[in-house]
Formats: sequence, structure tokens, C-alpha cells
Amino acid sequence: MRNIKIEKAVQNIAANDEIEIVERKGIGHPDSISDGIAEAVSRTLSRTYKEKVGHVLHHNTDEVQLTAGESDPKFGGGQIIKPIQILLTGRAANEFTLPNGETHKVGVDYIAIEAAKKFLDETIINLDIDYGTVVECKIGQGSADLRDVFQRPNAIPSANDTSFGVGFYPLTETENLVLKTEELLNSKDFKKDHPYVGEDIKVMGLREKDEITLTIASAFVSKYVDDVDAYLNMKDEINNIVADLAAKETDLSVETLINTADDETKKDESGYYLTVTGTSAEMGDDGSVGRGNRSNGLITPNRPMSMEATSGKNPINHVGKIYNLLSNEITREVYSDVEGVKNIDMVILSQIGKPIDQPRTATAHIQTEDGYTIDEIEEDVTRIIDRWLENITDIKDFMLEGKLRTL
Amino acid sequence: MRNIKIEKAVQNIAANDEIEIVERKGIGHPDSISDGIAEAVSRTLSRTYKEKVGHVLHHNTDEVQLTAGESDPKFGGGQIIKPIQILLTGRAANEFTLPNGETHKVGVDYIAIEAAKKFLDETIINLDIDYGTVVECKIGQGSADLRDVFQRPNAIPSANDTSFGVGFYPLTETENLVLKTEELLNSKDFKKDHPYVGEDIKVMGLREKDEITLTIASAFVSKYVDDVDAYLNMKDEINNIVADLAAKETDLSVETLINTADDETKKDESGYYLTVTGTSAEMGDDGSVGRGNRSNGLITPNRPMSMEATSGKNPINHVGKIYNLLSNEITREVYSDVEGVKNIDMVILSQIGKPIDQPRTATAHIQTEDGYTIDEIEEDVTRIIDRWLENITDIKDFMLEGKLRTL
Amino acid sequence: MRNIKIEKAVQNIAANDEIEIVERKGIGHPDSISDGIAEAVSRTLSRTYKEKVGHVLHHNTDEVQLTAGESDPKFGGGQIIKPIQILLTGRAANEFTLPNGETHKVGVDYIAIEAAKKFLDETIINLDIDYGTVVECKIGQGSADLRDVFQRPNAIPSANDTSFGVGFYPLTETENLVLKTEELLNSKDFKKDHPYVGEDIKVMGLREKDEITLTIASAFVSKYVDDVDAYLNMKDEINNIVADLAAKETDLSVETLINTADDETKKDESGYYLTVTGTSAEMGDDGSVGRGNRSNGLITPNRPMSMEATSGKNPINHVGKIYNLLSNEITREVYSDVEGVKNIDMVILSQIGKPIDQPRTATAHIQTEDGYTIDEIEEDVTRIIDRWLENITDIKDFMLEGKLRTL
Amino acid sequence: MRNIKIEKAVQNIAANDEIEIVERKGIGHPDSISDGIAEAVSRTLSRTYKEKVGHVLHHNTDEVQLTAGESDPKFGGGQIIKPIQILLTGRAANEFTLPNGETHKVGVDYIAIEAAKKFLDETIINLDIDYGTVVECKIGQGSADLRDVFQRPNAIPSANDTSFGVGFYPLTETENLVLKTEELLNSKDFKKDHPYVGEDIKVMGLREKDEITLTIASAFVSKYVDDVDAYLNMKDEINNIVADLAAKETDLSVETLINTADDETKKDESGYYLTVTGTSAEMGDDGSVGRGNRSNGLITPNRPMSMEATSGKNPINHVGKIYNLLSNEITREVYSDVEGVKNIDMVILSQIGKPIDQPRTATAHIQTEDGYTIDEIEEDVTRIIDRWLENITDIKDFMLEGKLRTL
Repeated sequence: MRNIKIEKAVQNIAANDEIEIVERKGIGHPDSISDGIAEAVSRTLSRTYKEKVGHVLHHNTDEVQLTAGESDPKFGGGQIIKPIQILLTGRAANEFTLPNGETHKVGVDYIAIEAAKKFLDETIINLDIDYGTVVECKIGQGSADLRDVFQRPNAIPSANDTSFGVGFYPLTETENLVLKTEELLNSKDFKKDHPYVGEDIKVMGLREKDEITLTIASAFVSKYVDDVDAYLNMKDEINNIVADLAAKETDLSVETLINTADDETKKDESGYYLTVTGTSAEMGDDGSVGRGNRSNGLITPNRPMSMEATSGKNPINHVGKIYNLLSNEITREVYSDVEGVKNIDMVILSQIGKPIDQPRTATAHIQTEDGYTIDEIEEDVTRIIDRWLENITDIKDFMLEGKLRTL
Repeated sequence: MRNIKIEKAVQNIAANDEIEIVERKGIGHPDSISDGIAEAVSRTLSRTYKEKVGHVLHHNTDEVQLTAGESDPKFGGGQIIKPIQILLTGRAANEFTLPNGETHKVGVDYIAIEAAKKFLDETIINLDIDYGTVVECKIGQGSADLRDVFQRPNAIPSANDTSFGVGFYPLTETENLVLKTEELLNSKDFKKDHPYVGEDIKVMGLREKDEITLTIASAFVSKYVDDVDAYLNMKDEINNIVADLAAKETDLSVETLINTADDETKKDESGYYLTVTGTSAEMGDDGSVGRGNRSNGLITPNRPMSMEATSGKNPINHVGKIYNLLSNEITREVYSDVEGVKNIDMVILSQIGKPIDQPRTATAHIQTEDGYTIDEIEEDVTRIIDRWLENITDIKDFMLEGKLRTL
Repeated sequence: MRNIKIEKAVQNIAANDEIEIVERKGIGHPDSISDGIAEAVSRTLSRTYKEKVGHVLHHNTDEVQLTAGESDPKFGGGQIIKPIQILLTGRAANEFTLPNGETHKVGVDYIAIEAAKKFLDETIINLDIDYGTVVECKIGQGSADLRDVFQRPNAIPSANDTSFGVGFYPLTETENLVLKTEELLNSKDFKKDHPYVGEDIKVMGLREKDEITLTIASAFVSKYVDDVDAYLNMKDEINNIVADLAAKETDLSVETLINTADDETKKDESGYYLTVTGTSAEMGDDGSVGRGNRSNGLITPNRPMSMEATSGKNPINHVGKIYNLLSNEITREVYSDVEGVKNIDMVILSQIGKPIDQPRTATAHIQTEDGYTIDEIEEDVTRIIDRWLENITDIKDFMLEGKLRTL
Repeated sequence: MRNIKIEKAVQNIAANDEIEIVERKGIGHPDSISDGIAEAVSRTLSRTYKEKVGHVLHHNTDEVQLTAGESDPKFGGGQIIKPIQILLTGRAANEFTLPNGETHKVGVDYIAIEAAKKFLDETIINLDIDYGTVVECKIGQGSADLRDVFQRPNAIPSANDTSFGVGFYPLTETENLVLKTEELLNSKDFKKDHPYVGEDIKVMGLREKDEITLTIASAFVSKYVDDVDAYLNMKDEINNIVADLAAKETDLSVETLINTADDETKKDESGYYLTVTGTSAEMGDDGSVGRGNRSNGLITPNRPMSMEATSGKNPINHVGKIYNLLSNEITREVYSDVEGVKNIDMVILSQIGKPIDQPRTATAHIQTEDGYTIDEIEEDVTRIIDRWLENITDIKDFMLEGKLRTL
């Protein structure tokens, strides 16, 4: 028997609050870069372990410190003065022994650095990885205790910690719009046509009753922006594109503000949000794991949130990762498969050392559509949760296949 | 006119949920150590600036990466193998020019390292700061833009970013108990009598209806624990002490679980939570800023939370710090001064470049005691909020005097 | 009048000693790699300064610390476990102001890292620069004093220090053979046919009267060596090649010993000098600047030597570099242009703050061929020395063009 | 039979050259600090190993990179801006297994950092070790090969490398004076009376026939120097003291020049050699191991020298250390015990893998006093050399007891 509880939500859903605040840090924000690297390292290590040993070995690489570099952006060009420094920490198994007694080494540092650089290369188009970044690795080997817990031959791993994950579904209109806005501006197609828009895009959505204000901070790539006029035209262009998106996504009225800190009295670079690489990590803004988006891609103070950094944790026994991802999946499935669910949020709490399919509690709060009661849907929801818990190790496979968002 | 709104809370308060989860990472948890260092560095820099220039200069030191060391704890002793590595990043003004044209240097790196080490020395009793830690400083000088914004001669600084803070009051019984438990176990008096209890204490509270389960992970200091028997007796002792505290603080039933990952079949160190220094940072657990407690000392998924790291940000114009601290202060005062308020939470949202006393919105959600209406209390609450916003720069002074908790 | 002195050498020349020891650390030895990087960084910075400002600005990049990585070489393959860490230090001007008052930045860190990586890429064929090295830059800006001295508008710069350089010519047969051996084994043509020979080749020559023993430590590249037999055959091959070279270069009898620490009782990698990359820097051997070859490419205890690291010092006013290179050039020219010179060594000593063309002393010791006296050749030698001192700034140009060996 | 050879020196001794150059970098010079730290770390590790295991385990800690900090010296005070960064590298055994099969850990990083800081504390009086230095440790574990060689149970260890050491005795008058000058200015007694003289003292001696010029660069400690006048008086004071010493030590005429780069037209700090700590490592001057004094304390281009860094190498099998120290001891003893020896220099060359008491060659070149021949003394000298080689492991004990100078 798993400790599953279904309760009627006494909380209102965020969409009904008079005021709603939603934030997303784009993939090029220093915190998101850190998250992305942490997850890329974990995923690459997991795959390497699986290839070499047949299963994922212990690791947690959810600690990345990005120290900003220094740059000298100029309209039409500019240069990097000092590279971005990226410190990878955490721990990972660097040796394994086969049944035949042979011990093999795993090049953890090499693999981690490769994974981090390849991620950067794919993610930040205008960043020169070779000379514009320094990636250092101080990943240790973890304490023996931790590894003991990890390698027990149970089919179901034991929880590494007492910790919890949360999830909710569906998104409100504000949440949806904030997410879509960043995703559009950072999509491959968009970048092709608008190479001047960097990946460091922060979208802050404020809904006051029926009016949404989107405040967007978007780094421009200096070599594609010839002068102040070009910059201002480009801002207008983005504004129009976001307005079109908003019209498509919501009926609420939407106002968009872009780079509001710009000082148009300035004739040179100093008044505008100009970067050489498209991310403020090149100068002034540090980043680290777990300080930005939650695992559904958003920061939502009106909603339940977990403080756990999902990115970089191992997908085998680290409940701080697994239960967050699981809650996302469960709430999504419940909403789409169970009739009458208007909103669901849930929390799953582990107890250290206990099998991860047996949480201390897995509790869902559900707001039903008019005409439905909790009693009517409880069984269906319970079954879905139970099945996910039963198949909890699937999360690891989804993660290895890159199917799960963590930022 | 400040954009202050008072609304009736449509959300239930956490205390009424059937399930409630509350967590606190003790002062010796690697994430809390990172927070504490970040704030200590900011406070020391602020004081130095004030002393030398008359006012606080630009800085944000809210990035600290703690990389775990390596240790070899033994019952009755043990040794440090590899020190804890602490990387300070962020940025801070390292020069200022007096009205007479003289330029003076500020030894930012020296000051930051001194502040970090002194904080560690005061906080982690059994950590050998000299040889058991390496504190490196890569604090940069920040971008010129940021500093421009900072030094505008307005009485009221302009917001450094579009960002928000949240707060709520009062604490539920679970929240209160979790907080008090850690504070007791880490109090000076308690440590005198129980030197074997390290500072790395994580308290996870789960309330299911009327029953609270406190799961405590508490690092023991190896030199004070002679053997397994001593260890188990000490666990009992803590258990009793926490039971007494619980009895005093709440009428709910409370069960306490301590170091549940211990494996009592083991006769040596490997089965127990033993450390040389009292913190898991000595081996295996990294830490960084902003991943642990919110600025009221707790992690509360049933409550509004901000993702902003409060610790280490400058108290002048960084709304990610100021609005969180302000929300805490406001909700506390409203609750204590306005009759009829059962629970209040609030959110304050800035707009980059606008004076920080003029937020984009400052909205309070209030649940009233039976017999009271929002209309009756709205004016009082508004006045309190308005007065705090008017005197918003007081936050800086409170912070300089060390009066505000950030972790 | 320059303080030039010509003296009869009372010292014997090394070639006449009964015992002579000569060593060369090949271009892939960790110390030589460090020297090479230091010089590449200085040369690249010098060119950049010249391009941007019209002349070379202050810098000294003669401090590089290479920390060995970790590897797992296997016959026929192997992997890198941990990258080689390379720390660039020293100082360099990172800003300059044009006559029109405009201040420009120089991306010293970026340029230095680029120069170091490109040098590695060209020098160590089988080293994976991207993921197998971490190049960090802590080059500072130097003290204002130093820079003052540097920028005085004299045609002839002032000496940065009280320091000396030495040189001698011609090489003895042992010296010549040691140098030629390494140069052959590290030549492009040789590598094409013998890709299994790494760049980390140390040649120690011992001449006892008429017999030379060459002890060669040569790292093999594991992927080109399938097994122990292949390895042993390859050693034989090298042995033959060196024997042929020796026969061509000297009439003395020459014995060659290669990788004498090999343990042929071992059937696996552990008994042989096998590396993934061709340099022991991948595992176990650190390196730093100035600990290997002197600027003529050799370590010669029977000859005058300077302790100054030539590589990485600026070619404008750092006499520790300039006077060593100058002594090499002068002695070479004297030997080839002045009849009757059998051997010449010389020392040039600066005095800090004085023009570098006015050394405190420039003294040559000359051994003449039978039938010649010092008096007969003194004038010619003096003229050559004087002309080189007069044109001392040419050294900078030769260095910029890459014409001067420093290791 | 050891390969010992005694030859008549065909070389003149340095004292007879018309020109002689001798240099000593004082204990506070950045290169000497690096040497001193390297040796302190090796000595402390050796003692720890001996205490725990009964004998010294494998290590080589002869790589230290000191990166200069930043300071702001002022007459009468000043401050440290940025600490001196010290990177310890090399390798050392961090585990050993007792005959009973128990494996114990050695806290290499902790021990190394402690040794380095304690050395600094004892050596540089005015350096604030706690906040004015950052000591980081990247000491690895060495390759398995190296450790194999090391742990063979022979009474006499095998040479770790093909390498040589050199030594000579006695010192010339110039050599003696240069050495004594620095030793006096850095003696405890002198510092008591002249606290304004820092430990970074470089002495360059030039002898031209009968005239010696001592050029001294001596860092002053700013807090003990109130103004320019005080500084100039102090320079005079040092000058007088050195003159007195010279009169006592030599009959040659001696001129002393102190801080000749000073610019007395300057009224502020910028014209003088002023430091907060007494070493230029605080600002502008980096340092590393093996670039300064040879193991007899001097740099002597007129004499045989080895490029090997003696400091930090293990005293068990690293011939680069042992043979240099041994040559110093042997030549000293030969000179004092064998009548008729005017000057002796010697070289000892190892062959990797062979017992260190069986060098490839140990050759002494001797210049006899008038009336003596090599034949007469050969036997005595040979016996001394042979006895030292027989008891070569004594070098380790002398080193552990701190009896041998390495810089």
C-alpha cells in the first residue's frame, strides 16, 4: 500500500487570484546555463555508466558555479576580455568492478567537461567555447555511505534523503504565456531570422485581474546591431512578435515592456542591453544551479514550489529530482485523463533509506470542475499515481532519453 | 500613490491543510553555510563602505560555492583529509573617489575572505578554519551599467531588476516547531551541554491532520562520541529534548525520528552520521547560496515563496533582497498590530529602474478572524505597508545592524 | 662607451673535460611545455599590442604552472581521466590610452588562453586540447612602478632589474648530439613515419673521454602500440635511428639507452612508458617555467648558465630575457665571423633603471685557436658586441618574428 | 665498486676570474618563498609518514606556484587588497596499508596546507597568513609506476630518474659576502632592531678584479616607514651595516647600492620600494620553485650548476635532490679534511632504476694548493665520496632534522 491521498483543494487556483506573478529565466540566463550544464553532465555520465556497466552509477552533479567573465561589447562588434569561469562540483563514481573482478576507471572529469562544453556549444550560439570559457571540474567521489545506499541490489532504489517534490497542472494563462514567450524567442527558427536576440531572456509576467504585463529583459548580440537606431527597431520588432503570440495564446489584454532599463538619452553602448555573446554571464552576472526555474520551467510564487534543484541530481535514488519530475508527469496525466479535474497539485515526500516507490506521503489536491466531486474521481487519480510509483524507475529512462524538462 | 492592494485571501492558510510540509536546513548545512557567508560578506563590505565613504557602495555577493572536502571521522577522533573549498563570487566596488578627487582602493578580496572566515569561525565550532578550509575570492567589479544605476544621487534608489519578494505571518504550529527545534539544537546553551551535536541539522516536519512527524538529520562530532553505544544514547538524549520542546510548543502529537539512515547492524563508523567538524560539508555535501531556507528561515511548499537568494545581495537597490525582508517585516507588524488578522501573505513586485519605494504592486492577501472583514482592516494595513515603503531604506540599516534574518 | 671586456678564457672548454654531462628536455616535457606556453603567450600579446598601439606594452608571462592530469593508457588505446591543468600567471597591460584620449581594453585573459591552447595544439599532436586540458588565466596587471619604467619614451628602454644573461658557442660534440637527437625525434617528418613516439623525450648525454652514452626517456603513444612486442620493436627502431644520427654527427663512440626503467617481465602496460597523449604531463609529472632547458636548448653543468627563465619575459626591457638571447646571438656571430676563436662564452649584467644598451658589464671569455692571441681578435669581437648592444632592440623584432629559440 | 673519479681541475676557480657574478634571492623573494614552502611540505609529509608508517612514503612536492596579490602600501601603513595565491602541486601517497591489512588515510592536503602556512608564518613576519594568503592544494597521487619503484624493499632505493647533482667548495670571497649579506639582513637579531627591512632582499654581487659591487634590492615594510626622509635614512643605515660586514668578511673593496630604482624626485610612495608585508609577492612578483638559489644558497654562473629544484623533492629516491645535497656535503668535507685541496667541484649522475648508492658516475674536479698533486690526495677523496655514497640514506635523516639548506 502506497501512502496516496487525494484531497479537495481548499486553495484557490492561481488563475483566480486577482494578482498573479510568473517568471521564467531563459536558457541563456546564468542560472539556467548552470542548471543546463548540471543536467547535461548528469545525463552524459548516466549514459556512460549504462554503456560501460549496464546501469547508472552513483553521482550528483547538481552544483555548478558560473563566475561571470568580462566583455567589451560595441555596436557592430566587441570583444571578450576575460572568459566565463565555470566550476563543476558534486560527486560521481569514478571506478567500477565487473563481476570478473576487473576494476575499470571512468574519466569523470573528462566526461563532465566534455558534456558541459558541448551543452554550451549547442545552447549559446555566439559564445566562443574554446577561449571564452574556462570549465574546471572538482567533482569528488562522494562518501562511501552514499554509495552503499546506492548500490544495494534492490529492484527499487532507496531514497537518498528525506525530501519532497511538488507539481501542478494545468498552467494558467499567464504561466502559459510567459513560458511560450521565452520558448518562441529562443526557438531555432526565430533565431535564424533574428540572430541579434541572445539566449539570455528573462520574462516576468504580472497579471492584475484581466491584464497581463510582460516585462522582458533580452540581451542583444552586439555584432548584429549596428547602432542605436537598429537596436530600437529590433526592440519594436520583438514587441510586435510577442504581441502576435499573446493574441494567439490568450484573450486577456497584454502589454509588453522590453529592456526597460535602457537609457535612450545615451548615444553609445552604455545605455543599452548589449552583449558580445547573448548572455549577461559574459559580464556581471554569475549563476548557479537551483536558483532559477522549477522543473516545469517556471517560477510561480502563487503555486506550490520545491526548493530542490532538479537539474544534475541522479535519476536513480535522488528523490529531490525524481519526485519533482514524477509530480509533473502525474499531474499532467491526471488532468488529461480524468474527467472533471480543473486543477491538480501534489506533493510527494520521501523518507531516507526507504524504497522510492513507497513515499512517506503522496498527496494530491484537486479542484474539480463544476458538477464533479472528489469522491467520483478519487479512484482514477489514485490508480494513476499508484501506477507511476510502481513504474517509478521509468523516470530514469525518460531522463536518459532527454524527454524530461528540468529547467 | 503607491500601488498597494489588500485582498481577501481565497487561499486557505497552510495550518488548515490536511497535509503540511515544512523544512529547515540548520546553520551548519552546506547550503546554509553558503547563505551565511554570502550575507556576512555583504554586511562587512557594507559597513566598510559606510565607514570609508559614508554610504554603502554597489555590491552583490550572493554567489558562494562550497565544494565538500574529505574527512576520516572515527569514534573518539578522526582527521580532515582535504579542506572544504569555498569560492566567493559576485561583484563589488573596489574603488571610490572622494569629492576632493582622491581615489581610494577598497581591499574587497581581503575583506570578503576575512568576513567569510570569521563567520565560519563563529558558526561551526569544530571546524579548523586555518587548515580545514580554503576560501578563494573571485569577486569582480560589476558592470558599469549596474554601478551607474546604483550611484544616482536620488534619496530613494532605483530597483536593480524586475523582481519580487514575498512574506507571510504568522507561522503555523508545524512551521514554528520546525524552526524552534533547529534553533534549540544549535543554540549556544545547548551546545555547551551537548558538544557532540554538530551544526548541520536538517529538520523536516510533516503534519498529517493533527500529527506531526519531525525527521531530523543531525551530524555528530566524532571526537565527542566514543563508540556506538555512546552514539545511540546521545540520539535518545536529543529525542527526549525535542519531545520536551514539542510538548511546550504545540498540542499536536509529535513523533521524532533522528538519523533514520543509521544502520545499527554496523559496529564501526560506517553505519552512523559521524563527522569530524559537525557538518557534512567536510565530506560529500556541497552547498551554494539560495538553495535552502527562505528569508524567514523555512522552506514551505504550502506557502508563497520567492526563488530569490536573499543572502549576500546588497541592501540598497537589490529588490530580490529588500522586498523579501520588507514583506517579512510588514506581515509581522500587520499581524501584531491590526486586530482581526488571522493570516497575511504578501507579494511586492518591482520594475527595474523605478524607485524602490514605488513598486509595480504591493499586494496583501488577508484571512480575517471570524467577525472581521477586509473592509474594516484595509485602511490600517494599507497605512502600515505605505509607511514601510516610505521608510524602505531602513531595511539597509536593520541589515547593517544584523537585525534581519536571511536564512 | 659600453662596458665591454674581452678576456682570455682561463677555463677549459667543456669539450676537453674528461667528463661532460648534457641534458635536453624535449618539447613535450612538462617543463618545456610550460616554457613554450609562456613564450607563446608573450609573443601573441606582443603582436597584439603592436597591432593595436604600435609598440609592445608591458607584460611578463614567464609563470606557468602545469598540474599533471590523470590517464589510463592501454596498449592500442586508453583514455584521459582528468585533464591537465594549466595556470597562466604573470602580468600584462590590459588597457591603453591613445593620443586622442580614448582608452581601449585589451582582452589579456582571452588572448593568453587562445595563445596557450593554440601552442598546445601545434606542439602535442595527440593531446585533446578541448576536453583534455583546462587553461586558467590569473595574469594580473603588474605594479604601477614597473609600468612607469616601461613606458618612458626613451628610444632605448631601461633595465627592469639587476640581472644577467650568459651564452656560449660553439656546441661540443656531446651538446650537438643531444640537441640533434631530440630535434630529430620531434621533427615533423619523423613523427609522420613514427607516430607512436610522443613529444615528451628527455635526452641525457654523458661523455666519458671518447665515449658518449645517450639515455633517452621517450613517452610512447598508446593507441599506436598494440602490445608489448610492438613496443619493444619500436624501441629497437628508435635505437637504430639514433645510432645512424650519431654516426653522422660524431666520431666518438655512442651507446643509446631507451626507457631503461621499463620492466620487461611485465605483460601489461604497467611495465612500459606508455601514455595516451605522448606526454607524462597527462599523469604524474607537473611542470613549470624556467626549470628546463636554457635558451640555447640545453642544460649544461660544465658551462656557464643563467637561472633566468627566458620564456615569457617581455622582449623590451626584461634583461633576464634579452641578455640571454643577446649572448647567444653574439657568441654565435663571433665564432663564425672572427677567425681564430675556438670557443667563446660571455656574460652581460644589467643595472636596474639604466638603458639596456649600457650594461654594467659585457664580458667575453675567449679560447683561441692555436696561433691566435686575444689581442689580435679583441677589436673585432668588441665591435660585434658593441653593434649588437647598439641594435639591442632588434632582439624584440626577432622574437616577434619567432626567430629566436628560448627552450 | 662505485664509479668514482678524481680529476685535476683544468678549469680555473671562479675566484681567479677577472669578472665574477654571484646572486642570492633572500628568503622573502617570491621564488625563495616557493622553494621554502615546497621543502616545508616535503619535510612535514616525510615526518608524518615516518611517524605513522615507520618510513617515508613516496612524494614529490617540488611544484609551488605563487601568484602575486595586490596591495596598497602607504608611508606609515597601507592595506592588502588581494591575497597572495599559492598553489601547491606535486604528488604524495595518501594511503598506506599496514602488515595487518588495515588501510589508513593520510590527510595530504590538510598537512600540506598546514606546513605551507606555518612556514609562511615563521618566515614572513609582516604577512597576515589568515586573510592575506590563499593556499590551495592540488597534490595528486602520482603514477603507479613511480610508486612501484619507490616501495621496492631494497635497503637502498633505486633512482627515480636519470639526473645529476653538482656541488663545489669553498665559496669565493664574493660568494661568501653575498650570502652573508642576505643572511645578516634577514637574521632574527637584525630584524628586531630594524623591523622596517622586509624579507624580500635580493643581493647581486659583481666582482671586477679586486672590486666588489653589491646591488641590493630590499623591500621596506611600510608601517615602519613614516615618510620619504625616514626611508632615505633607513637606506643609509643599511648601507653602513653592510659596509661593516664587508670590511669584516673581505679585504677587497666593496661598494653597496641599495634600491637603485628609487626615484627621489617623488614625494609619495610611488618612488620607493615600499611594501605592506616585506615581500614583493604582495604585488607584482610571482614565484615558483627551482628558479632561484641553488641548494648552496647561491646563483653562480661561473660555477657548475644543476637545473634541478632541490626543494620539495623526496629525500628517498629523487636523485635530483639527493645528489645535489650530497655533492654539497662531500665537497665541504673534502675541503676541510683533505690537506692540499684548494677547490673542489663534483657531479654525480644517476641512472633510472639503479640503486642510488651506485651512480653512473661521481666525478670530482680538484684544484690543489701549491705543492700538492692529485695523486697524493686521490685516495682520501675517494674514500670520503665512497663513504658518503655508502651512507647515502643519511641524507634523508639530515633533511628530516632540518639540517640541510635547500635554498
